Amino acid sequence: MPGRTGRPRTVGASPTGLGTRADILHAGARLFCTVGYGSTSTHALARVAGVRQATLYHHFPGKHAVLLELLLGTVQPSLDAARDLLGRDEPAPARLWSLCAGDVRLLCSGEDNLGALYLLPELDDERFAPFHERRAELEGTYRALVAACGVPPADVVRTAALVLGLVESVILQRRRAPETLDARTAEAVADAALALVGLDPDACAAHARTARTLLPAAAAD
Amino acid sequence: MPGRTGRPRTVGASPTGLGTRADILHAGARLFCTVGYGSTSTHALARVAGVRQATLYHHFPGKHAVLLELLLGTVQPSLDAARDLLGRDEPAPARLWSLCAGDVRLLCSGEDNLGALYLLPELDDERFAPFHERRAELEGTYRALVAACGVPPADVVRTAALVLGLVESVILQRRRAPETLDARTAEAVADAALALVGLDPDACAAHARTARTLLPAAAAD
Repeated sequence: MPGRTGRPRTVGASPTGLGTRADILHAGARLFCTVGYGSTSTHALARVAGVRQATLYHHFPGKHAVLLELLLGTVQPSLDAARDLLGRDEPAPARLWSLCAGDVRLLCSGEDNLGALYLLPELDDERFAPFHERRAELEGTYRALVAACGVPPADVVRTAALVLGLVESVILQRRRAPETLDARTAEAVADAALALVGLDPDACAAHARTARTLLPAAAAD
Repeated sequence: MPGRTGRPRTVGASPTGLGTRADILHAGARLFCTVGYGSTSTHALARVAGVRQATLYHHFPGKHAVLLELLLGTVQPSLDAARDLLGRDEPAPARLWSLCAGDVRLLCSGEDNLGALYLLPELDDERFAPFHERRAELEGTYRALVAACGVPPADVVRTAALVLGLVESVILQRRRAPETLDARTAEAVADAALALVGLDPDACAAHARTARTLLPAAAAD
């Protein structure tokens, strides 16, 4: 089988068609988001991925490494977009709008609700520190843009936390009532973020127009 | 020991001082919010509560019943306040502001971050249906007040979900960075909710003044 690396599968073809490693990550996403992390055994992980436990351990030192790779893969596209937006010259509200709308779209995309991994109670473990570092950097971008929108310094941390909290609220909404998410959700969150930083509706609308021209560029980087 | 019911403890006095049932609930809150629900055994629950497993089963049919009681106890005060606010005559924006500020205060109060129970991946189980019914009623109140604030019918579900999402975002914030929550957070969320329903800052400020006179009454009911 060309293009395949690692140890052989138990049976059949790769469920994802992307190879053993992707199958294990896919199984991890599915199990961690439904039965939870603590109660998912490496045995169950291997079974759902359609591989032997030995194969799983060939690719990952343990289930924590599967979760960490999933977490990093989920935060990285947001971070790439955030770094790109930080370096641009457009007005801060337009960049904040773009960051929020892009993050909501990422959280609403894909087959699995990977953002739900952020809600797991076990993330406090220091083995997930690399994820927390990247998420702190993402929150730093939110703070920088919130501050650049003219929010008083004493209110920046609180306001940025609310903006990011509003963005990430779509995770729980997607789990509980996915039918309430629609094509307008991302823009509604981004509009609300500008209201949170104190802009009036007319200013919001103007910045949203600028921001819509930014989105494809940020996504293409 | 007066006022105590049920089977005897393993050793020592009740850790909470509130009796065996409260000790078990307290242990459940602590364990479910840290090590998770799936990986908390009834053995661990009993040990942390300082009771025998047989005592635990005397009070609860299983750990699901402990979690359900915790969930119901967390949503009930919000629901009581919501029902009270629905029946009042004050302008809808003032009542929505009061509901949001009150819910944020509830979610930020208490020794344990009980709202974190809402984030557990295992809540899909039908044994937690009574909680989901009450939470749906709470969301219904948010929708009714959002609609009464003049939000167009087509936008009510999406907007109410964002408002409630913003309120509940303090749960994850409390877990990750409790130092970023302060005395102003509840009012900042409530102000943001009025911005989400489309009110301008001046109207928000006026309704917030009305709402502050509502809070003690709602809390006292």
